[in-house]
Amino acid sequence: MTLVIPASTPPGPPRRRDAGRPRGAAVTAAVLAAVRVELADAGFEGLSVERVARRAEVNKTSVYRRWPTREALVAAAMEGLLDDFSVSPDTGSLRGDLYALAAPIAELAAQPDGVALLRAALSTTASGDVGTVASRRVGAPAESVSSIAARARARGEWRDGVDPQQAIFTLVGAIIHRVLLERAAPTGEWLDGLVDIVLRGISATKPQP
Amino acid sequence: MTLVIPASTPPGPPRRRDAGRPRGAAVTAAVLAAVRVELADAGFEGLSVERVARRAEVNKTSVYRRWPTREALVAAAMEGLLDDFSVSPDTGSLRGDLYALAAPIAELAAQPDGVALLRAALSTTASGDVGTVASRRVGAPAESVSSIAARARARGEWRDGVDPQQAIFTLVGAIIHRVLLERAAPTGEWLDGLVDIVLRGISATKPQP
Repeated sequence: MTLVIPASTPPGPPRRRDAGRPRGAAVTAAVLAAVRVELADAGFEGLSVERVARRAEVNKTSVYRRWPTREALVAAAMEGLLDDFSVSPDTGSLRGDLYALAAPIAELAAQPDGVALLRAALSTTASGDVGTVASRRVGAPAESVSSIAARARARGEWRDGVDPQQAIFTLVGAIIHRVLLERAAPTGEWLDGLVDIVLRGISATKPQP
Repeated sequence: MTLVIPASTPPGPPRRRDAGRPRGAAVTAAVLAAVRVELADAGFEGLSVERVARRAEVNKTSVYRRWPTREALVAAAMEGLLDDFSVSPDTGSLRGDLYALAAPIAELAAQPDGVALLRAALSTTASGDVGTVASRRVGAPAESVSSIAARARARGEWRDGVDPQQAIFTLVGAIIHRVLLERAAPTGEWLDGLVDIVLRGISATKPQP
């Protein structure tokens, strides 16, 4: 069950004896990608470390060594996806910034593996790793959100008394509702409509049509 | 394992031989109440029909006869809670109607059993009974929502082009995000702020402060 490393790798052909057995960073990437696919297939309840290992073409022990529990595995897969949202869009307008913040979240939530991760994050109780990561990361874009609000305030676009996090979480919550309860894509005209509602909701002055 | 029904019930004292064993509608009420408590304790994954039966003080077979699966049980518990939201508030103003619609949802979502039902609804896949009930019931207040919008339109309060369902689902989605990801109460000033954002977001004219 341990990974067999050949004593020497013959030069020449790129196909090694342990071809298909990724190592190091490649193992991490392969496993987390497999977690997302398996989650989309079987959900959090049905997730099997054995199937994840098989799909990633790594040894089961390589998985357990890095992520001792199913929760840790899913939490790691989620961290990876959420890293993409740490950037703070600066488009020059509040509408542009809101849209730039919401669009990648909506795009992720439109994919089966994004939906599966969302379900996993929302289904687990406060004590689980997945819930903890989800909760912590919910706070992570706080800097990004407050800089969007600060720039909007400087332009006179931000209505006094609006909590920046509440504004953004309203966007995100609507996307979650759309995907998990309406079971429809949070994109296109629907997303335009949402950004419009939130923008008008938090704007100091009503934007011109 | 079957329910023993005494041949005759002695008159007089209210305490019968099968005291504590509710029947018929009482069984349903006791079981669904027990489901909500157990869900809040153990979550959907940890829900045990045996413990539900014990807590409701009914026979396990009485539970299985009515609800053959765990999913059916939770779906029934959810139906019961969602029945409270079929009324259409008519307070005379759009702000009042939005608040009257959102407040009981927020109140339910602030309770441990409401949180547990939400988690169950969001965690299960499209094929499960719970997800199906949740999805179907999401559409159920459609009439209520469109009559709120129609009255607001008649008063000149509703902005052209806003989809009534999108407006309400934005409210509900923000409440879900608040409870499950921020893990905070969706009530008080927070709820006022949310209603304010959505009201301004969907209003034809900016409401006076």
